[in-house]
Amino acid sequence: MKVDHVSVKTENMKKYDKVVKNAVGRMVPTIINGEEHVPFMGIGKYRPTGRKYGPKIASCIDYPEDGNKVVSSLKEALMNAGLKDGMTISTHHHFRNGDLISNQIFDIAHELGIKNLRWYPSASFPCQERMISYMEDGTINRIEGSMNGPLGKFVSEGKMAGIGILRSHGGRYQAIQDGEVKIDIAVIAAPTADAFGNANGVNGDAACGLLGFALGDSQYAEKVIVVTDNVVPFPCIPWQIHGNYVDYVVKVDQVGLPEKIVSGTTMITKSPDRLLIAEITAKFCEAAGLIYDGFSYQAGAGGTALSIGNYFGDILRKNNWKARFLRAGSNKYAVEMLEEGLVDYILDGQTFDLDGVRSMRENANHVATSPFTSYNYHGKGNFASLLDVVILGATEVDVNYNANVVTHSDGYLLHGIGGWQNTLFAKTTILPIPLFRDRLPVIRDEVTTICAPGEMIDVIVTERGIAINPLRQDLIDKVKNSGLPLKTIEELKAEAEAICGVPEKLELSDEIVAVIKWVDGTIIDSVRKVIK
Amino acid sequence: MKVDHVSVKTENMKKYDKVVKNAVGRMVPTIINGEEHVPFMGIGKYRPTGRKYGPKIASCIDYPEDGNKVVSSLKEALMNAGLKDGMTISTHHHFRNGDLISNQIFDIAHELGIKNLRWYPSASFPCQERMISYMEDGTINRIEGSMNGPLGKFVSEGKMAGIGILRSHGGRYQAIQDGEVKIDIAVIAAPTADAFGNANGVNGDAACGLLGFALGDSQYAEKVIVVTDNVVPFPCIPWQIHGNYVDYVVKVDQVGLPEKIVSGTTMITKSPDRLLIAEITAKFCEAAGLIYDGFSYQAGAGGTALSIGNYFGDILRKNNWKARFLRAGSNKYAVEMLEEGLVDYILDGQTFDLDGVRSMRENANHVATSPFTSYNYHGKGNFASLLDVVILGATEVDVNYNANVVTHSDGYLLHGIGGWQNTLFAKTTILPIPLFRDRLPVIRDEVTTICAPGEMIDVIVTERGIAINPLRQDLIDKVKNSGLPLKTIEELKAEAEAICGVPEKLELSDEIVAVIKWVDGTIIDSVRKVIK
Repeated sequence: MKVDHVSVKTENMKKYDKVVKNAVGRMVPTIINGEEHVPFMGIGKYRPTGRKYGPKIASCIDYPEDGNKVVSSLKEALMNAGLKDGMTISTHHHFRNGDLISNQIFDIAHELGIKNLRWYPSASFPCQERMISYMEDGTINRIEGSMNGPLGKFVSEGKMAGIGILRSHGGRYQAIQDGEVKIDIAVIAAPTADAFGNANGVNGDAACGLLGFALGDSQYAEKVIVVTDNVVPFPCIPWQIHGNYVDYVVKVDQVGLPEKIVSGTTMITKSPDRLLIAEITAKFCEAAGLIYDGFSYQAGAGGTALSIGNYFGDILRKNNWKARFLRAGSNKYAVEMLEEGLVDYILDGQTFDLDGVRSMRENANHVATSPFTSYNYHGKGNFASLLDVVILGATEVDVNYNANVVTHSDGYLLHGIGGWQNTLFAKTTILPIPLFRDRLPVIRDEVTTICAPGEMIDVIVTERGIAINPLRQDLIDKVKNSGLPLKTIEELKAEAEAICGVPEKLELSDEIVAVIKWVDGTIIDSVRKVIK
Repeated sequence: MKVDHVSVKTENMKKYDKVVKNAVGRMVPTIINGEEHVPFMGIGKYRPTGRKYGPKIASCIDYPEDGNKVVSSLKEALMNAGLKDGMTISTHHHFRNGDLISNQIFDIAHELGIKNLRWYPSASFPCQERMISYMEDGTINRIEGSMNGPLGKFVSEGKMAGIGILRSHGGRYQAIQDGEVKIDIAVIAAPTADAFGNANGVNGDAACGLLGFALGDSQYAEKVIVVTDNVVPFPCIPWQIHGNYVDYVVKVDQVGLPEKIVSGTTMITKSPDRLLIAEITAKFCEAAGLIYDGFSYQAGAGGTALSIGNYFGDILRKNNWKARFLRAGSNKYAVEMLEEGLVDYILDGQTFDLDGVRSMRENANHVATSPFTSYNYHGKGNFASLLDVVILGATEVDVNYNANVVTHSDGYLLHGIGGWQNTLFAKTTILPIPLFRDRLPVIRDEVTTICAPGEMIDVIVTERGIAINPLRQDLIDKVKNSGLPLKTIEELKAEAEAICGVPEKLELSDEIVAVIKWVDGTIIDSVRKVIK
């Protein structure tokens, strides 16, 4: 490690300070944006102290007796909420790249001359690219949340005033709950709401399914603004967001573009290599006895994961089994399984297509969840560890099974963590990944950024073989006579390097531009500025 | 007022101290059971300060990864939860007089030699009469919650060690949320649960509908125990109580007697006088224009209120109108209105019969609510003030429209407040009451206990006429030519006294045995020991 006790200062605040080596050997700052943080101490080692955050006690005295909280514009709502320099503004990403409200918030802040805001989205998307200008002019000090695409590039190049802090979906809820991030104003874009502020995502022209990513924001923010294009008479049922937490309701012409909640990746892969990986993964799960009557799984929305879900469906059908529940990011494939009776319940964290939205609206067994129920590590348990199998992607894995999901091998921070870290607590975690992408091997001596320590990753499946983490001798025993192509991770790495060559060691600046949190709020790694 | 600055002491703690005159002229203690309280200051006058209570931050480290929180017995759960002297133990009353668990908790505490507990039920019932022996032997210091029947009699006779504190359903949630009452152990009896602690009231042999009264307990208690006789595989859907708040799950043979959730009063009255009151009430509402297409109302479960609901149904039918929502205590009459299409939604706080339970299970428009959504005065508004009409009972009303719902005219504390105070915030509050009961006039010069200041009561309907609060000139104007029997409240009182005679003035001891909270947590009145 090259960096130690470096302090980089902007304006009157050090961006970060007191860099120490953490339990996975990474150098991480413990003072970030002027606030103290704890370095990663190992899985299950950091025990929180203190009490949950308590926002100010409200009183009905200060809210309209007729329940009508509608104000004339988002600007009025933000001004009523006391928008001022240095505040933390939160948004959610259920509209994904179809979000229309986040930009408006910062347009208004810019117009009002507000500076130095912390933007705390549950995720950011390319449609929010114009936040770059607000980071350049000082309206926004920093983003704490995933920084996909152009925003991530901006951060990677060291251009953001503050340090980015990336948290998992569960970690984001945990940080709010624990009072680590105090939200001054939460803006919740909702496809349907009533004037009292009860809101949901299943009804309305811009229906996006659910609003679970905004749950913590509604519960703990000092001021909560619901923005909708569909005001219905009280009561708005279901009330995924309770109006009892809401200060203002704003009616706009259009709250989001529902067609853009569909990600380009939410289609089954057609790539022969990816299909092969999917098939091997499903066969592995079958051979290892991971699939049984009443099992549960979570697969992401990527093409490979969707394909694996299809294979799982085949295995269930063949055995006349039923999965108990499926954790989703729902889409038409998951909905088909529910409707076919292959699974009892979909426990859904975000809908990835309009079939998912429809199903959640119509089917009581398609259940809205939130990071509180599913992922909060500072709860009395959460759902993630109840899963039998989770299927995840990764940008890189190393020979110690450490995995990276946020940076590319060129050092650029281009992805958020999402629920990725949280779901690693499933009973078996499998990463089906290609051996190389763009002729760059995916298995490395060392990942650029550690998002998960190797002990959390059980199985790597590639198109050329399966590597099982030696910690999972039980799995090795179960499949050793299965005829599946079992290899060591070093063998897989060597195969890739034989084809692509040994990748050059990446040179990055010493300067830290962002940090990655573990699910317990500790800092597992730093992201460094790229050298162009 | 005879009492001022009296201190009564038990053991090492004064039961109460610093008695002052509050805004309705009643003498109330401001130190109760060693804790400070605020005297009632007038409607909307007390503004809370501070932050919501934060229970200790938990961590998944301390909970089983497989989500199985089942322990072998309630005793084990209570011991694991650290049951000890002086703790606050909460229970809910969704089983009403069919509760089987509350007694067991205190049987165990007694067996373990635990002393000085505060029992914080959402309501108590005659089936819990044996708590008297635990109050006598010091296991229980006091009940804070409604004290119906024998428990109320015990308190009225000055036999409880601590001072009783009665709160409305909303006030109970507010006290928990604000940290006024810190619950050490919440025990939630649930008709169905999974091993993770997700629980509901709609399924299982002992289905009681919903568990909303236990919501705040689950959110804020340090330790939460779910007791059920029906453990289903994860996930228990719906999850009215989130397992993420739950520490232990206990399986018992029988969790409650569902047939006893049906109160004897949940049948339409057959009394000619009561039917007349109901008819006059409905006619008044119609004449005053309170009923319209899209209106909303709440009526209790008493025979008169149910009959009024029937009349409302007739008015809706006649006009081809539909109510937008009905707040309930649901029962077969409300369910019939929903199923007939006379109302869009039932917003239900507790199911009063098994038709209510069935409807809540089957009909997405029969919605479970909680004191948080409906009644919490320290929220950002609540549902109570959105109602057009609320129909309530009272034990006494005085010539200033002050009303009493907890004590009888003989001074005995025999009823809880329930949601009564909370619902007074409806646009129009009507008390249909008989002019006398057991030859005792209901309208008095002064009520024994003020549960609501007169400004909250709009209309009194009796079998001999209607009195409208002079503050509601708008209502007086609307019905003055309706032909309805309008009288002053003094006229009604005189009519009753002409029949029954002027009641003797009640003599009570100076000693305070319980206090009544207003919805904002301030103390509106004291209950005094009866002189036998």
